[in-house]
Amino acid sequence: MAKPKYGIGVDFGGTYVKLALVRFTDRGLKIDGYSKFQTCDYNRDEVIEQLVIRIIKLKAESTYKGNEVKGVGIGMPGRVDFNKGVVCDLTNVPGWKNVPLKDILEKKIKIPVLIDNDANLMALAESKYGAAKGYQNCVCVTLGTGIGGGIILGGKVYRGGSFAAGEIGHMTINENGPLCACGNRGCAERYAGNRYILEEAIKRLRGGARSSLKDKIQGKYSNLTLEMVAAAARKKDAFSMILWQEIGAHVGVVLADVVNLLNPDIIVLGGGVANAGTLILDPIRKTIKERAFKVSRQNLRVGLSKFKHKAGIIGAAAIGVTGKENQ
Amino acid sequence: MAKPKYGIGVDFGGTYVKLALVRFTDRGLKIDGYSKFQTCDYNRDEVIEQLVIRIIKLKAESTYKGNEVKGVGIGMPGRVDFNKGVVCDLTNVPGWKNVPLKDILEKKIKIPVLIDNDANLMALAESKYGAAKGYQNCVCVTLGTGIGGGIILGGKVYRGGSFAAGEIGHMTINENGPLCACGNRGCAERYAGNRYILEEAIKRLRGGARSSLKDKIQGKYSNLTLEMVAAAARKKDAFSMILWQEIGAHVGVVLADVVNLLNPDIIVLGGGVANAGTLILDPIRKTIKERAFKVSRQNLRVGLSKFKHKAGIIGAAAIGVTGKENQ
Repeated sequence: MAKPKYGIGVDFGGTYVKLALVRFTDRGLKIDGYSKFQTCDYNRDEVIEQLVIRIIKLKAESTYKGNEVKGVGIGMPGRVDFNKGVVCDLTNVPGWKNVPLKDILEKKIKIPVLIDNDANLMALAESKYGAAKGYQNCVCVTLGTGIGGGIILGGKVYRGGSFAAGEIGHMTINENGPLCACGNRGCAERYAGNRYILEEAIKRLRGGARSSLKDKIQGKYSNLTLEMVAAAARKKDAFSMILWQEIGAHVGVVLADVVNLLNPDIIVLGGGVANAGTLILDPIRKTIKERAFKVSRQNLRVGLSKFKHKAGIIGAAAIGVTGKENQ
Repeated sequence: MAKPKYGIGVDFGGTYVKLALVRFTDRGLKIDGYSKFQTCDYNRDEVIEQLVIRIIKLKAESTYKGNEVKGVGIGMPGRVDFNKGVVCDLTNVPGWKNVPLKDILEKKIKIPVLIDNDANLMALAESKYGAAKGYQNCVCVTLGTGIGGGIILGGKVYRGGSFAAGEIGHMTINENGPLCACGNRGCAERYAGNRYILEEAIKRLRGGARSSLKDKIQGKYSNLTLEMVAAAARKKDAFSMILWQEIGAHVGVVLADVVNLLNPDIIVLGGGVANAGTLILDPIRKTIKERAFKVSRQNLRVGLSKFKHKAGIIGAAAIGVTGKENQ
C-alpha cells in the first residue's frame, strides 16, 4: 500500500466556511481534522485571517503526527479563475470581487493553494472517489435553492472559456416559460429550484387542492418544507406524489438535454432536493428514457451523490493533494 | 517554412461520397485533387471498393509528384466508434451497421485511416484552420435538414461516452412542444430544421398571410425554398423577415443553453439554413444576449463557417495528417 497523502479542503459556503484535513489512501479517504466558522461573523479580510489561522493549525496537527500536508484546495460559491487562483465574484457573499486568494494565502501558509468553483470540486470528489468513480465523463448536478452543475470530461474538470460552465439550472426547458431571476425565461431552476417547488405547492394548496400536508402546516403556509412534501409522498399523499413526479419530469427534461449534448457516462445528483431519493430519481430516469437518444442513454447511469454535503470539502482536499497539473 | 503535409479526406454523404487530396502548410491549406461518386449508385461493398480505388489513385498522383500522403480521414453521416474505427450506424444510408471500415481499408491501402462523425470533423476543420482558429472551446452547429453539432473542448474533439455527443438539434426548447421524429417533444430541430421552417411558412401562407412569396410560387406551395424566403426577406418582405427572426430566436434559445452549459469561446454556424447569413445570425445573437449568462456570453463570438460545405472534407484530411493521438 502506498503512503497516505494529506490535503486540506475548504468548503466556503454562504452560511459556513468549513475546513477539513483529509487523508487519502489506496483504499479511500478519511476526514482526520475539522473546523468551521460562520461566514457572516467576519468581513472579507477577517475571513481570510480565519482561513490562515485554521489552515496553519490543521497543518501543524498533521505535521506533529508526522504527516506532511501536500496542499490546500478551496471551493468557492461563485466564479473562480482556476488558473490564476482569483475569486472573480461570489453569488451570495459581498466583498469578493477579483480577490487573488491563492497568492494571499500561499504567502502566509507556505504550501500550494488551489481555488475552484464548489460545483467543480463536488464533481471531482464524486468522480475520483464517489458515485462516479471509474467513469470518464460525468455530470454532477446539485438540486437545491439553485440548480448547479460540475462537469468532468475525460476524467478532468471542464470549466469553460470564462470558468462559467455548468449552469444547468439556467438551461431553458420552456422558451415561453416564466421569467427567471437570471433574466432568461423558462429555466429549469424556475420549475425545480427549492423555492419554486414550495411556491407551486403553496399555490395549489391555497387553490383548494386536497392533501395531508394541510393538517401538518395548520394553515401556516410558510411552515411548509420540502422534507414535509417528501414525507407525505412516502405516505402516499397523492398531491405530494404528483408534485414530485412533476419536479422530476422538469429536471429530467434538462438532463435529457445534457445527455443529448454531452453523452456522459453518468449523472450524479446531490443537494437538498435530491434527498427526496427515489421520489425524484424515478421520474428523472423515466423522463430521460422518454426524451434522450437511445444510444446516449442506454449505458447511462443516473444516481445519487455518495458524499452528499461533504462532497465539496473532499473535492477541495483532493485538488490540494493532486495539484493543478492533474486537474 | 516547414515542408507541406498531405492528407486524403473523405466526406461520406447520403447523396455523394467526395474525396480530396489536401495539402497543409504553415500558411494554410489547398485542395490538390478531387473525386466524387453518387452514394446510391453502389451497394456497401462496392462503395468500399470505390473508396479503395479512388484513395489509391489520389495517393499515387501525390507520390508521383514526390509528396507522401500521411493518412486518410473519413467523415461519416452517423455514429462512429472513433477509437476502433468502426462505423456503428448511418442515419440515411442502409447497410452500414458495425462496419470495421478502418481495418478493411488499411489492409488494402497501406496507410493509416481514421474514421469519425462528420460533424466532429467539420468542427475540427473550423477549429484548426477556419472560423474558430485560435479558440480552445468551440461548438460548431450545422443548420440544415437536421441540426447537428461538433464540440471542440480544450482544442480537441469531444465525442462523448458512446461517441454520440453533439445532438444540439434534439435539445428541448419547449417541453410541451410538438413531437419530434426522435421521440422527444419540442426539440430545437422541430422548429428550425429546414423542413419544419418550410412547413410553417406554407401553413401561414395558406392561412392567408400576405407575402411577396405568393407571387413567386404561383400557388404551388411545394416550390417554396428557403432561398426564396431569404431573398424575399432581403427585399423587406415583412412575412419573410418575421419568419427568419422567429427561426433565429428558436436557434438562439438552444444556443443560449449550450452557452450556459459549456461556456464556449466561439460558436460557428454552417449548413444550408445558415446561408441566410445575417437574417438568421442577428436574431441568434440577440437571443443569446437576452438569455445566456453575461459572463459566459460577453466574450463569446458567434459567426459563420469559413469552409461551408468543404469543412467536412478538410477536417477529414486534417485528421488523416495529424493522426489519432492529437485528436
